[in-house]
Amino acid sequence: MKPTIRDVAKLAGVSISTVSRVMNAPDSVVESKRVKVLQAIERLQYQPNAFARGLIYKKSHTLGVLIPDIRNPYYAGVIRGMEDAAKSLGYSIIICNTDRDKERLISYLENCNEKQVDGILFTSETVYPDYYAEIRRFRLPVVLVSTHSLEYELPSVKINDEAAAYDAVSYLIGLGHRRIGMISLPLSDPIAGLPRYQGYMRALREHGLPHEGGQVIYAEHWYDEARSAAGRLFGQHPQTTAVFAASDEFAMGVLSFLHERGIRVPDEVSVVGFDNIRMSEMTIPQLTTMAQPVYELGYKGVEKLHRLIEHGSVTPLREYLPHSLIVRSSAAPGKGTQ
Amino acid sequence: MKPTIRDVAKLAGVSISTVSRVMNAPDSVVESKRVKVLQAIERLQYQPNAFARGLIYKKSHTLGVLIPDIRNPYYAGVIRGMEDAAKSLGYSIIICNTDRDKERLISYLENCNEKQVDGILFTSETVYPDYYAEIRRFRLPVVLVSTHSLEYELPSVKINDEAAAYDAVSYLIGLGHRRIGMISLPLSDPIAGLPRYQGYMRALREHGLPHEGGQVIYAEHWYDEARSAAGRLFGQHPQTTAVFAASDEFAMGVLSFLHERGIRVPDEVSVVGFDNIRMSEMTIPQLTTMAQPVYELGYKGVEKLHRLIEHGSVTPLREYLPHSLIVRSSAAPGKGTQ
Repeated sequence: MKPTIRDVAKLAGVSISTVSRVMNAPDSVVESKRVKVLQAIERLQYQPNAFARGLIYKKSHTLGVLIPDIRNPYYAGVIRGMEDAAKSLGYSIIICNTDRDKERLISYLENCNEKQVDGILFTSETVYPDYYAEIRRFRLPVVLVSTHSLEYELPSVKINDEAAAYDAVSYLIGLGHRRIGMISLPLSDPIAGLPRYQGYMRALREHGLPHEGGQVIYAEHWYDEARSAAGRLFGQHPQTTAVFAASDEFAMGVLSFLHERGIRVPDEVSVVGFDNIRMSEMTIPQLTTMAQPVYELGYKGVEKLHRLIEHGSVTPLREYLPHSLIVRSSAAPGKGTQ
Repeated sequence: MKPTIRDVAKLAGVSISTVSRVMNAPDSVVESKRVKVLQAIERLQYQPNAFARGLIYKKSHTLGVLIPDIRNPYYAGVIRGMEDAAKSLGYSIIICNTDRDKERLISYLENCNEKQVDGILFTSETVYPDYYAEIRRFRLPVVLVSTHSLEYELPSVKINDEAAAYDAVSYLIGLGHRRIGMISLPLSDPIAGLPRYQGYMRALREHGLPHEGGQVIYAEHWYDEARSAAGRLFGQHPQTTAVFAASDEFAMGVLSFLHERGIRVPDEVSVVGFDNIRMSEMTIPQLTTMAQPVYELGYKGVEKLHRLIEHGSVTPLREYLPHSLIVRSSAAPGKGTQ
């Protein structure tokens, strides 16, 4: 049995609150008693438990991770990086699946505050004013991961989504494609939606391709929705020879649609994804995709939060990690202009 | 600003340890002081924080989840079920990726104990004697999820792996296949390895198929390894018309190998997976697979742990949830005997 504060008090012949004072404010205890308590602590090998140390040091060594849904492999990769960094820095992480639901997210913020987490990793979600209000109210150190805020002074770690989308589409243009469709997230999504759309449009424009509105079809987050979006894309623009998908899951939906229609990838149509989730090398054909450094985003997010907790501030405030194109087998030279 | 114990003490004109004693052992404080403290608590709307309540009630309302690697979509699905149940029962969950590494796992058990978690969800891992020793030493309530122990009296929630594998292989036999290979996990894995192998062998035997040793190739946990295992299977047994893969990730490796060789699925070779991870409906063709109730395994695991924490024991000790075959497009009638 582990010794308790009660055992220490008994052995030292003092009250429990005296033991507590020796640990909290030793100068307030007369020396004779203090020595007895310290000897008892020594003899019993007493270690105050996490709650007690939490009360003394005001640290729980726990971080809250708010994330839409752990079942999305992109998030699972980010969390893995977070957890490894947390372990090496002496933190545990608490997982909160928000489902992008406001009420659920706010209840988690309250819960994290109540649990006295040392900080929050706010992941892949827009920072709405009411979220920010809660964060301020609880005085919680927060780092944004795979998202950022231009309105609020919150530290963040992400990639440059606009530039990454631009590079992905420029790659397809470099392969000779001229009719490039996009399966986009809703433009109301300020991270994976609008910036990737803007990158796509800039690539068309700068390479002198017709771009009034582009060939863009919108879908929500899931595979099934991307599959039917691909149907609409090829229905409206049957001469499309390449598709830029705003996520790998979208790209998998496109592959499935094309397979069903008997359209060969990459011989007839090229497909480029975004994220480089683990599954993207298990598709048929293997997916060419714009890689985010998923694990590093999580890892660096925790390191940044740790510095914020220790020092109260952190630079650079908004940090952008590099993206890189992973060339596999789903994109090939276009025949359009040859 | 939230009021602290210090504010209460100041307003009541007593010491901090008196306030603490009023909350811990009110009878030990003379009435005049006690009333002052209670009035101050009332007036300031003081709420002791989680640490303080932890010290008082010995509950952290936190559960530790030990799991091999969150990036595996099967585990991510289990955790999602756990987290939803935890939220509805008022717990938070701490994630610990063990990588099936003994040292790492034991350091997490120590960490969870030190953090005063109320219980542990020990997931998809064998309970070795030294793990059990630690669990006993820390007196931690533990529920096993997607694993069980026949040696130790630990509550568990999983499916019947032997019966599920038997049913999957019987389905292929029912389709007319006679030369059915298996990509198996190592038999040293007492959950996903040996029992699924035994189910495969029993199906061959009971249906009167040649089964001395079967056509079994072993692979470790990952996609790449399953792909090369499929190469060995078809190298050694070129007349194989169906493959039972011990996991969906293995099945994806098999699909990839067959695609590369130009062998059509399911026209020439049928493939059945195991688990029904989300990705199994995104493969080409969509995967027929033996479904585990992934989300429910996690959800029920937490409910069981909650009952164990509340009542000190729980029945049934070893619980088996039903499995079910999800028929999609990767298996078709065999032509072998027709």
